[in-house]
Amino acid sequence: MMLWSIMGTIAAICTTVGFIPQIIRGIKTRELRDVSPVMLTLLLVGCSLWLIYGVHLKNPIIALANGFTLSFVIVIFLLRAMYKRNNSGS
Amino acid sequence: MMLWSIMGTIAAICTTVGFIPQIIRGIKTRELRDVSPVMLTLLLVGCSLWLIYGVHLKNPIIALANGFTLSFVIVIFLLRAMYKRNNSGS
Repeated sequence: MMLWSIMGTIAAICTTVGFIPQIIRGIKTRELRDVSPVMLTLLLVGCSLWLIYGVHLKNPIIALANGFTLSFVIVIFLLRAMYKRNNSGS
Repeated sequence: MMLWSIMGTIAAICTTVGFIPQIIRGIKTRELRDVSPVMLTLLLVGCSLWLIYGVHLKNPIIALANGFTLSFVIVIFLLRAMYKRNNSGS
């Protein structure tokens, strides 16, 4: 049924673009200390595996959603490391 | 191939249990201010839809993974609100 595909797509969009507000908040406050680096590491590994799995399944939704999420998580990781270094002097 | 199913399962475990270190970090530091509430809201909506979609597809991996992630995100949301209220006095 068409409705279910739309629902799955909205679900994928929410859990993917959900990381964008985290990037925006980090850039605004220049602080991402409270975001767990262990969580980011697990999401990094998980999304990479999902991406490979999605490519293997030839499922563009799984592959694309996780490709984007992966890139957002990498950005959050890099911003966190940068702000941590900059703020450690204070 | 068996190997691909294992890979998909490891991927699902990583992106699900990944939120547990965030809960632990929050409880330890009693601070979750840097975690974006907009991200949490989008993950809440997204995981709820994924859960319904997974149940509809009768796919236990999608349903279970997102059911757990949903409960972890709710815990992070509640902890964040609690710490925010407690810390606003200082």
